[in-house]
Amino acid sequence: MLPRLLRTARSQCSAISSIHHTAATRAFSISARKNALASWNDHDKAYFQQLLNPESVLTDADDTEAFTIDWLKKYKAQSNHQMVLKPKTLEHVSSILNYCNDRNIPVVPQGGNTGLVGGSVPVFDEIVLSMSSMNKVISFDDVSGILVCEAGCVLENLDNYVAKHGYMMPLDLGAKGTCQIGGNIATNAGGLRLLRYGSLHGTVLGIEAVLADGTVIDCLSTMRKDNTGYDLKQLFIGSEGTLGVVTKVSILTPPRSSSRNVAFLACNDFLSCQKAFVEAKKKLGEILSAVEFMDRQSIDMILTQQDWITDPLASPSPFYVLIETSGSNSDHDMEKLEAYLEDVMGSGIVTDGTVAQDEAQVKKLFMLREDISMSLSSRGYVYKYDISLPIDKYYTIVEDVRKKLAPFGAEVVGFGHLGDCNLHLNISTLEYDEKVFNALEPYVFEWTSKYRGSISSEHGIGMHKPSFLHLSKSDESIQLMRQMKEMMDPNGILNPFKILPSSEQTSTW
Amino acid sequence: MLPRLLRTARSQCSAISSIHHTAATRAFSISARKNALASWNDHDKAYFQQLLNPESVLTDADDTEAFTIDWLKKYKAQSNHQMVLKPKTLEHVSSILNYCNDRNIPVVPQGGNTGLVGGSVPVFDEIVLSMSSMNKVISFDDVSGILVCEAGCVLENLDNYVAKHGYMMPLDLGAKGTCQIGGNIATNAGGLRLLRYGSLHGTVLGIEAVLADGTVIDCLSTMRKDNTGYDLKQLFIGSEGTLGVVTKVSILTPPRSSSRNVAFLACNDFLSCQKAFVEAKKKLGEILSAVEFMDRQSIDMILTQQDWITDPLASPSPFYVLIETSGSNSDHDMEKLEAYLEDVMGSGIVTDGTVAQDEAQVKKLFMLREDISMSLSSRGYVYKYDISLPIDKYYTIVEDVRKKLAPFGAEVVGFGHLGDCNLHLNISTLEYDEKVFNALEPYVFEWTSKYRGSISSEHGIGMHKPSFLHLSKSDESIQLMRQMKEMMDPNGILNPFKILPSSEQTSTW
Repeated sequence: MLPRLLRTARSQCSAISSIHHTAATRAFSISARKNALASWNDHDKAYFQQLLNPESVLTDADDTEAFTIDWLKKYKAQSNHQMVLKPKTLEHVSSILNYCNDRNIPVVPQGGNTGLVGGSVPVFDEIVLSMSSMNKVISFDDVSGILVCEAGCVLENLDNYVAKHGYMMPLDLGAKGTCQIGGNIATNAGGLRLLRYGSLHGTVLGIEAVLADGTVIDCLSTMRKDNTGYDLKQLFIGSEGTLGVVTKVSILTPPRSSSRNVAFLACNDFLSCQKAFVEAKKKLGEILSAVEFMDRQSIDMILTQQDWITDPLASPSPFYVLIETSGSNSDHDMEKLEAYLEDVMGSGIVTDGTVAQDEAQVKKLFMLREDISMSLSSRGYVYKYDISLPIDKYYTIVEDVRKKLAPFGAEVVGFGHLGDCNLHLNISTLEYDEKVFNALEPYVFEWTSKYRGSISSEHGIGMHKPSFLHLSKSDESIQLMRQMKEMMDPNGILNPFKILPSSEQTSTW
Repeated sequence: MLPRLLRTARSQCSAISSIHHTAATRAFSISARKNALASWNDHDKAYFQQLLNPESVLTDADDTEAFTIDWLKKYKAQSNHQMVLKPKTLEHVSSILNYCNDRNIPVVPQGGNTGLVGGSVPVFDEIVLSMSSMNKVISFDDVSGILVCEAGCVLENLDNYVAKHGYMMPLDLGAKGTCQIGGNIATNAGGLRLLRYGSLHGTVLGIEAVLADGTVIDCLSTMRKDNTGYDLKQLFIGSEGTLGVVTKVSILTPPRSSSRNVAFLACNDFLSCQKAFVEAKKKLGEILSAVEFMDRQSIDMILTQQDWITDPLASPSPFYVLIETSGSNSDHDMEKLEAYLEDVMGSGIVTDGTVAQDEAQVKKLFMLREDISMSLSSRGYVYKYDISLPIDKYYTIVEDVRKKLAPFGAEVVGFGHLGDCNLHLNISTLEYDEKVFNALEPYVFEWTSKYRGSISSEHGIGMHKPSFLHLSKSDESIQLMRQMKEMMDPNGILNPFKILPSSEQTSTW
């Protein structure tokens, strides 16, 4: 059974618990520095129907439901008064924001709504600005590999599009079939290819965005290098729609590798996983494209939940590392991979393993890594933590949490992007359990902070973590973030209650 | 003979030409929104001598001269009243800025002072904050390759340091022996390795910076992924010391390649250079690390100025492309390079060429590319333009400018980072010639703007180009930049007169 109310919003509200949290009082409390945020009314609806067209303005519960709850059904808008707008043009977005800013009506920009921290759904009755109808490719230059497209393009569609020209998107994630590039940018999505191609702060070359008051910021450069003033596009990468709405993007796509190999390797302890990673950097060099990690508990979770999947190795091991190579010459790549395997197996770092023999096997091995999330969800309730840690602490937290939760019968699994020191610590119970939740938060975040890790590696802050932001960022940094928000969105209409802790929470530090 | 006054500052002042440009009047005019900026006095000097120590406070002309003029001697502070401070700690930097902010005394942060747009020297009598004494490596993690160091570390020293651990700095530029990592970050330096490793917006993981009022912003994350709120470090990358002073940096260094090859190739026309680049991306794939371009005029410039250098090929060609590969297996790399050369020479794209046989030859071929700047400087006066253009327009501007300048006997050379579409268009005359200057500006910038290029690809805006910023950035973007500057440096003490055009200039657009 899922909890009726969103747990994380409740935890976030703890600092102001004496106030009864209706939409109006909480909104007022959080944006006390300005007028209270307004709710939309029939007059507003008529305006939007005229601006867009009646089909692009959804207010029936059946139509809006999918936009007001996240896919894991953990974050649900606490109001039945919902509106979803589906603009088709930049002018639509600009007019909507300009209007909402004048009326103090809050807006939640939404891409594919695949986020994991509640960043893309309303907390109360904020209007959802769905970007899904702005999904055109504008241009692709097959000399430079630079793609320009609208924010609502689905990541996988873009990857298929550039594949025809011999290129690939510089990011890849489990949600690729649904997530949109605008949402990827707003959340600074990481994923499987970051190890090789870097973050969106480097690969995004240009952005067109609309500010809270409807002003269009055209930084849609298609140049790889452009040192003309402050790099404004960076403001929109990772700010989760709180500083502006991304409408178009220009992105550098790397050439698609013709050769791809995947090895699934078993290790007896975590130190060996580290060593397997370091050796991969040395031996595989420029063809190394992913180093993923799973503990045995992750594999068991898949095997028990998805009965059509079989154990890839003959006998179980406590730890696994999945190594991917991508290169332009399959003979060279295989020779490098063989030398690597000889090295790590010869030295005992790796005790067992298998190498995919064809594309189908590649997919199957990757599925082991990608299906962990799905398996956890299908088992029951999942408490998800996405953290960065120094590599020597990467698995210690999993062991500590497992020990701490032993009395509660929770399953604790650890997997993630080892190459980026990004751990997904997931805890599974059959039903939501307040005691487990209380044992986990703030414990996990404080543990992470103690070792100067990041309490959000790639998922963002959203609705889940504003009250823990101070564990990864200094007071001075949070103060500067507040000033930026105040400057760019003085009425506080853009994705309110996300990222920044309420002032009441700040004052309790 | 070099011009007595800086030309570019004069051109920048044209919009307010009715004002006599003493430090005080111009400062007042530009920062009219606040009190006029103050000049430092003996009382201030005594304060700084006590805060640092007398040796770290320079005011004698002999001592300050090297800090108040750029290395090309184009930008010289227009005052004899100069002070250079050399802080040793974060606390020093914070105290200096806090004091200067209270007193409205302007400050120019300075790294190695190797910039080309006058960003790191005072315009009038701003205090120079030299970071050269803050030059310690703080930590290096040889599993992740993450380096943490102070801002004043010289780039080449850092490259040598990480080399001992098998890593390399992700950037490399001609000035590496003098430029400092803090200055590299403040100017978002590009250089030779950007093609492969991307820009500093991607490779810099963390920054510690001091704001104008002395507040320390600690974003010195050592995690590759950290999505916790707005990515504040990005504000300091490329803002040329106008938003804060970078004091420490955390940067991801890639593994050093064990195998490196360089080929110097001749082409008959520019279209063939483009094709040679596209084929290199296809055939060399993941080992391609630089694609540099030179026209024959660039080579002639070197040969006439540096008589110890000889033509690398038997007969001259109109265009040259230098291809570098870096990889982990020399046999594989050479095999790929040979296949590439067979392809481009067989198809006639490349008409002649040579491949370096050892490290000495590699250096010699690279020197051809790196010594163009030096040769131009030694010939006489150089008008330097660093622009990005769509690849099909990359060389057209060189031809157009050559045609336009034919009556003036100026030498026009074009070279640059072809792989990044970054052209260095340089014009040489024996002495500074106002007619040549007037023929070039704003012509070059307007030409670039017409094709949506960038008027500053990697050198920045500095003192040279504020009045042309609108040719690469929209009014709305410049307005947002102004708001950011106003928010972060309300008194306007940080590197004034750089990047942003004066309000008078804005009003003339």
